[in-house]
Amino acid sequence: MKINKDWLVGFVDGEGTFFIGIQGGVLAEFVITQHKRDIQLLYAIRKFLNCGVIRVQQNICYFRVRKREHLLNIILPFFSYNELMTVKKFDFYDFKRVLELVEKGKHRSKEGLAEIVAIKNGMNRGRILDEDIVPSLLKDKE
Amino acid sequence: MKINKDWLVGFVDGEGTFFIGIQGGVLAEFVITQHKRDIQLLYAIRKFLNCGVIRVQQNICYFRVRKREHLLNIILPFFSYNELMTVKKFDFYDFKRVLELVEKGKHRSKEGLAEIVAIKNGMNRGRILDEDIVPSLLKDKE
Repeated sequence: MKINKDWLVGFVDGEGTFFIGIQGGVLAEFVITQHKRDIQLLYAIRKFLNCGVIRVQQNICYFRVRKREHLLNIILPFFSYNELMTVKKFDFYDFKRVLELVEKGKHRSKEGLAEIVAIKNGMNRGRILDEDIVPSLLKDKE
Repeated sequence: MKINKDWLVGFVDGEGTFFIGIQGGVLAEFVITQHKRDIQLLYAIRKFLNCGVIRVQQNICYFRVRKREHLLNIILPFFSYNELMTVKKFDFYDFKRVLELVEKGKHRSKEGLAEIVAIKNGMNRGRILDEDIVPSLLKDKE
């Protein structure tokens, strides 16, 4: 299987997740989840990115990068240089911002951690865009 | 927004659907569904492929190609030349096979239509791969 960077950006636009978790520390992970029939593709992605692990749970498999070093030196530069095209790019920017704050040790202060939590809460499904607000306002009027 | 073919293949590997419906005729459609905040991206895809329509339903928007002519002359050649990497490629092959059968008028005979129904039933969620069978057999043993 021949992965190339543009294909991977498109695939991650569809299937990738940039996740921040806060539970006794800041967890950052980049994940691609698939039905396990596509596990070979995840191995190909791991080979292409030269980092990450593959895990299987029932019929689901996922490629995951959690190591700070790999996130900082591989994942962040890759998606900074090869920009996502969906609104997921904003999740990537937030993910990057959190990693930068952690790199600076900001998560050790109350204010820094509060900032990270605020960023996390606005990511992924928590993200509110103008278009989300407008229809709900319209709905109220109906 | 600058779409390129490799990005589009990756995105369709994640988000595209090749659908065959049978209801008073054979309906073939290629669809990409997104949250409507990414509608601009669907417009960019439509421009890139130079066919299809955009529809919006509540918070969902989709790019859809149904016209036989556009499926035959744009969508089939595109994904034949730029191969998908997930198992979705098998759905594309089946989709192509159905369109070829319809082109030959096979759907007008009972046998031809039966063949199309059989292909349709094996597509997408109906697809059974070796890996799907093995765990269910194992489960029975547990």
